Amino acid sequence: MIIIGEKINGAIPSTAKAIAKRDVEYIKNLARMQTAAGVDYIDVCASVENDVELETMKWLIDIVQAATETPIAVDSPNVHTCIEAMKYCNKPGLFNSVSMEGEKIDVGFAAIADTDWECVALLNSDKGIPKTAKDRLDVFTDIMAKAKAYGIAPSRLHIDPLVEMLCTSEDGVAMVIEVIREIKAQYPAIHVTGAISNISFNLPARKTVNMGFTVMAMMAGLDSGILDPTDRDLMGVIYAMVALMGEDEYCVEYIRAYRQGIHGAVKK
Amino acid sequence: MIIIGEKINGAIPSTAKAIAKRDVEYIKNLARMQTAAGVDYIDVCASVENDVELETMKWLIDIVQAATETPIAVDSPNVHTCIEAMKYCNKPGLFNSVSMEGEKIDVGFAAIADTDWECVALLNSDKGIPKTAKDRLDVFTDIMAKAKAYGIAPSRLHIDPLVEMLCTSEDGVAMVIEVIREIKAQYPAIHVTGAISNISFNLPARKTVNMGFTVMAMMAGLDSGILDPTDRDLMGVIYAMVALMGEDEYCVEYIRAYRQGIHGAVKK
Repeated sequence: MIIIGEKINGAIPSTAKAIAKRDVEYIKNLARMQTAAGVDYIDVCASVENDVELETMKWLIDIVQAATETPIAVDSPNVHTCIEAMKYCNKPGLFNSVSMEGEKIDVGFAAIADTDWECVALLNSDKGIPKTAKDRLDVFTDIMAKAKAYGIAPSRLHIDPLVEMLCTSEDGVAMVIEVIREIKAQYPAIHVTGAISNISFNLPARKTVNMGFTVMAMMAGLDSGILDPTDRDLMGVIYAMVALMGEDEYCVEYIRAYRQGIHGAVKK
Repeated sequence: MIIIGEKINGAIPSTAKAIAKRDVEYIKNLARMQTAAGVDYIDVCASVENDVELETMKWLIDIVQAATETPIAVDSPNVHTCIEAMKYCNKPGLFNSVSMEGEKIDVGFAAIADTDWECVALLNSDKGIPKTAKDRLDVFTDIMAKAKAYGIAPSRLHIDPLVEMLCTSEDGVAMVIEVIREIKAQYPAIHVTGAISNISFNLPARKTVNMGFTVMAMMAGLDSGILDPTDRDLMGVIYAMVALMGEDEYCVEYIRAYRQGIHGAVKK
């Protein structure tokens, strides 16, 4: 499982406050905590006004790189911001994200084509977020045609099927699970990712719902996730699932992660 | 999901101690706690020497029936004990269990045939616990032939595919999941049950593994479980899964159970 640590994001109020105050130690600590939890990428999203987004991204990326060796996921709704932010990174990371909306995919794929960067691609288009599995898979087909045109191997892509909240859309879960299965059936080497915690929006005991959905999605083929790696319950369930799926012989990694304190806090 | 509360079992050291001391209040409390957690059956298993098993079962059943209205699962490896214990029950419950070992299935099915009792049937035989999915499904076929002969509808059966520990048998999980799927495909009205916590034997942070396995098994068709209903994390994941599978519109039951305090204790 590829873990993309979500905590350095200006959409999170406490992180926004640290960004506004230019609190270096706070950001550094988020980078270190997530690295200690074993993340593969540290997502960096400024979530500020356009005119200060790039300088904020640079400030954040510089802090993360001073604190850890973990590759960075440059995260912005503006594909040009992602491209500029790539230049601040001292090693290849994750481009987060492109989609079939407007020029995003051409601009983004052109920027990463001849690099070692990986890329998140969302299954939406100029028509918005498709309602049905078929329509999302049509967007996926368009994305893969672009990937082929730009010479980007499926193994460099993290497809995000767009997880929506459970409380208003029970059918949406079955649909997303179907989309994940079909994507992995078509391209076994591709990664499927998602913002896990979206599923539990507006519900009590959100972490319970997040855990259930993570297991469902991993069974369907999800092998990457944008999540809080300091959530020890969720991390425990992820390590447990890898073992339950037969990919961790004698539970060696599960036990190692427990000993390292990455999971194990589930209490009555 | 049909919940069979596992706590009144002499194989649990604290319960064994209460049985040895004939501690009525302790047993009564276990019955009440499990009823408050919304269980469908309270399992009663003495786990004592043969010569005192039946009197111990009667003592336990009398206490449970004085404390709650919840139906009882009469639980013994000795099918004759189960038959005698049925007589102490003031309403139909769950016969736990029969298997294709020896005369168990004929004796057990004959006893419940003309009653409203339901029955747990384990997928083992005189040859022991089969290693492969095919062999377990062969035992299942034999059980269903017997059920037909005794006129017991599939909806009265809880098939236990026999969950084994993950730490020594990663392949066993995929095998059990396959068995669950195939049983439900053959008989959609049948119940599939299991002793969930067996999966995590010998592992740290067992509850995490139990949660992951429960979700996997529910996705495959598990709709009954012998488990600790006072484990609020596990109960939360079960309620979450019912919603995630589209069987709890607007998460009404999930939210109700949260408000009743049945789940919601998952903490960082």
